[in-house]
This record gives sequence, C-alpha cells and structure tokens, in this order.
Amino acid sequence: MSGAGAFDDWMKTVQAHVETALETYLPAGAVVPHKLHEAMRYTALGGGKRVRPLLVFAAGALTGADTRALERAAAAVEMIHVYSLVHDDMPCMDDDDLRRGKPTVHVAYDEATALLVGDALQAQAFSVLSEGDTVPPARQLAMVRLLAQAAGSSGMCGGQAIDLDSVGISLTLEQLERMHQLKTGALLRAAVVLGALAGKDLSAQELAALDAYASAIGLAFQVVDDVLDATADSATLGKTAGKDAAANKPTYVSILGLEPSRVLAEKLRNDAHQALEPFGEQARRLRDLADLIVQRKA
Amino acid sequence: MSGAGAFDDWMKTVQAHVETALETYLPAGAVVPHKLHEAMRYTALGGGKRVRPLLVFAAGALTGADTRALERAAAAVEMIHVYSLVHDDMPCMDDDDLRRGKPTVHVAYDEATALLVGDALQAQAFSVLSEGDTVPPARQLAMVRLLAQAAGSSGMCGGQAIDLDSVGISLTLEQLERMHQLKTGALLRAAVVLGALAGKDLSAQELAALDAYASAIGLAFQVVDDVLDATADSATLGKTAGKDAAANKPTYVSILGLEPSRVLAEKLRNDAHQALEPFGEQARRLRDLADLIVQRKA
Repeated sequence: MSGAGAFDDWMKTVQAHVETALETYLPAGAVVPHKLHEAMRYTALGGGKRVRPLLVFAAGALTGADTRALERAAAAVEMIHVYSLVHDDMPCMDDDDLRRGKPTVHVAYDEATALLVGDALQAQAFSVLSEGDTVPPARQLAMVRLLAQAAGSSGMCGGQAIDLDSVGISLTLEQLERMHQLKTGALLRAAVVLGALAGKDLSAQELAALDAYASAIGLAFQVVDDVLDATADSATLGKTAGKDAAANKPTYVSILGLEPSRVLAEKLRNDAHQALEPFGEQARRLRDLADLIVQRKA
Repeated sequence: MSGAGAFDDWMKTVQAHVETALETYLPAGAVVPHKLHEAMRYTALGGGKRVRPLLVFAAGALTGADTRALERAAAAVEMIHVYSLVHDDMPCMDDDDLRRGKPTVHVAYDEATALLVGDALQAQAFSVLSEGDTVPPARQLAMVRLLAQAAGSSGMCGGQAIDLDSVGISLTLEQLERMHQLKTGALLRAAVVLGALAGKDLSAQELAALDAYASAIGLAFQVVDDVLDATADSATLGKTAGKDAAANKPTYVSILGLEPSRVLAEKLRNDAHQALEPFGEQARRLRDLADLIVQRKA
C-alpha cells in the first residue's frame, strides 16, 4: 500500500476512534438536562476534521502511549476546540450561522443554550482529562495543567481577545503571528504535547523539538486558513467564506498577499519536518499531518 | 472575645487572604491581552461575600489542610463562581446590569469581552488547581475532577440549563430543589469537599457527612436568596431585586410562600449542624457559616 493510502487509513481509524471516545465521554442526550446534553452532542459529534485529536494520536506514537490515555486526551482537546467554535460563532463574537455545514448552536437552539454548551464542554474536557487510571497521577496532572494554560487567557482565550481588538486595525506581521500563536497555536501545541505526555515524561530537548513542530504547523494552519478564506467558497469550507476580508480583519493574505502566503505555508511545512528529525520513523504521522495541514482544500 | 466576634475576625482574615490569592492567581492587567485581564480582575477582585472560599477554609480546618493548598482551592472555586455570574448576567441569559453593586462586565466592557472573561476564568480555575506542590498528585487530581464535575453539565451548567427551561413553567418543590442542587448546590458542595481534601483523603463516612452538610446549606442558601429577592431592595442586595418574580421564575417563596420559606431555611440550618456532629469542635467555622448563610441580609 502506498504511503498516502496508509496515512488515509490511519486517519480514518483515528477519526472513528475519536468519534467513539466523544460519544462515550459526552453525557447522553437522555440524561437531564436533555436539551443541553443534546446540544453538546449536536455540535461535538459527527463533524470536523479532528485535526487536534489526530495530532494527539500521532504524537502518542512517539512515546508508545496507551490508547485509552490518548482517547481521553483527544476527546478533551477536541471538547475545548468545539466549545471555542460555539462561543466564537455567537452573535456577540463572529455571528456565524454555519459551522461544519450545519446551523451553529445558537441558530439550531438559542443563544443561552450556546453559551451553556460552551461552558459545559470546557468543564467536561477537564473532567475527562482528570479521570482514568492509565497515566501516573503526576503526569496526568501535568496534562491538565497544560490544557488549562493552552485554553486560558495566555492561550486560546487570549488570542481571541487580541483578535477582537484587532478588527479594523492594521497589524504588523509579528503582531498577527503572535495573535495566531495564541488563538489557534496554543491548542494545537497542547494536542501534540498531550499526546506525547500520555506515553512518558518528556526531556527538555524532546519538548523543544515538539514545540518547534507545533509552532510551525500552528502558523501554517492559520496561513492556509487565510488562503482558503480568500479563495474557496462557503460550500467547500462548510462555513462562511470571505468573512475575514468582509470584517476588515487582518490576515496573512491581506498583509503578505496570496502567493507569498502560499510560499510561507510551504516554508513552515519544511520547518515542521525538520523539527521532527530527531524522532525518526516514529514521527511519520506527525510529518503526514504537517503535509495535510498545508495541502488541505477546506 | 465573643464567639460571634471571633467568627467575624476569622471571616475578615480569610476574605483578605482570598483577595490576595486571587490577586496573585489572576494574570496582571499589564500582561497582554490587557483588556481581557483587566476585565477578569474587574469582576473577580474587590467584591462578593466569598462564601465558597470561606467554606473551603472552614472545611480545611477539619483536616489540617495546608494554607497554600486552601488558597489554590479557594481561588479556583471562586473563579468558577465568578465566571458563572459573568455569563449569567449577559443579555442572552438574565440580562442584568448590576452585580455586587458594580456594572456587569458586558456593561462595563462589552458582550464579547464578557464571554471571553467567563471562558478564561474557567480555564484559569483549572490551571490554578492543577499547579502547586503541597498536595500529593493523586489527591490533587481528585480535586480537579471534583471541580470539573461540579462546574459542568451534571453540576452548575446543568442547573443553569434547567433554570432556563423553567421560566414560566410551574415546578414542583422536588423539581425546584433538584434545579438548585445543581445550579448552586454543586459548587457549594465542591467548596466544602475541596477544602477537606486539601488536607487528607476522606473516608466514605466523612464524605457522606460533608455531603449532608453541603446539601443542607446549599438549599438554605437558595431559599434565603429567594426570600431576600422578594423582600430586600436592590441597594442592599447589590443586584437587581425582584427579578425572579418579574421573570416569572419559580422560587421557594412563590411555591411555599414567604413564612414557610423562612421556616424551611431554619430547618436546613439545623440539618447542617447535625451533619457536622461527628467532627466536633473542628467544624466550628462550618457551623458558623451555616448560621451566616441563613441569617444574612444580602
């Protein structure tokens, strides 16, 4: 079987695995309060590329992590990601009606439910990550700490806040980069490090190499997002295209231009590959994911 | 010094302690993103009765818990409480302009900031609770798990969801009790158990006794809230009075009447005292807090 075919199979296997894990770790719709639990499942299940869970599993291969520990880490990081989308789509933020090809939670339900769905998903992420007995407690605690810091005001929420304050302002490339390092980069980095930590403690060198990889794919992810927002249509993206330009938000495309943005994405892919060199063949799936992130069409 | 005077002094000491802990554990306003961090501090510092932190410290006295561990637990549980107030006050929920005598976050800043302040405070709570080295990792992990479950869809968020769905519906007393057990009871219980766990593992009997205490004061807290909402003015409460009746929300007063609600609060105070009997003199502050919760005027 070709390398690309094997990677596709691996992805499908992990995605199915993560779907089952989310099914398990989200409260059932039959449990009170029904509407809240149904809405949590509506938004978290059956959609999304599961990039962060894929990173968790790919990084877990570096350290021989136990599958059950990876399931918990993947479900937790995806719950944080999904909650951030639900809140980000609300009228007081991006006011978006469409997400992953479906009506957003505040459209399908109502705003108050969307607010609570996000809040409850965040709590559930920490609940899932702090349960189970496959990781020694001290390391498991380090995983909780890592996710909390990545999700909070010096991570994802902080990036959102900078993003909000940047509408209509002209950012420098450095400022734009800093914003994205927090807004999307922090959680992608957390996914990579959580996956590896699920298997063993990391040396400072290993952590630095994973940080360099995560930083490169995090920026690449955003550069490609901006390129797609400027070039793809809403049906392909499963969300409203061209919104950033319409909202006068700074993007890589608006600062660098389209073609230089594509060149930058390629450079970042190479950076990501280089960072993985010390890990050899065990980093194969992380390498594949860097390629996927840069080459995706949606 | 009289018992009441000693309790007042103890409360003031703990409140000052908790204020310092929150000052320390919240990111400084000078740290980027400034507005988000300022808004987090605006809402979390300098106000509130700090009932949950008081419960943490009072319960910590049962098990000789280390003060630094109690500071973390108290700051974490208060951050969860404060985030819930910020989100609860937003236009899509209770739409309240006044909280603890100050403009609410979405009024003083804007809705998007209020959303992010709540989200970031929740993450910060788990960050604070998973840091430090004064509690053995396995027990610290149990504390994280406890807080996550109390905050999520089978705790506080679940209670909020039931509350939302109850507007204009006539609840039975049992349904009302269930709603409040989740909405406010779960976090009050978490405060008590977190404080005790900061000192040592708990036996099943100790946990059951603390549960009975927490359940009684949790309900008493809500019964008294309803009585105050029906009888006190906004200036005294530091929030808009009479809102529940105006919103046609079911309350203890609307179901039981005013005087029977007062009688129920007294009964619950006695239940709380009884639950503490096995702990003897070390439970003194928990006893005092049950009295405070029932006798408070705001």
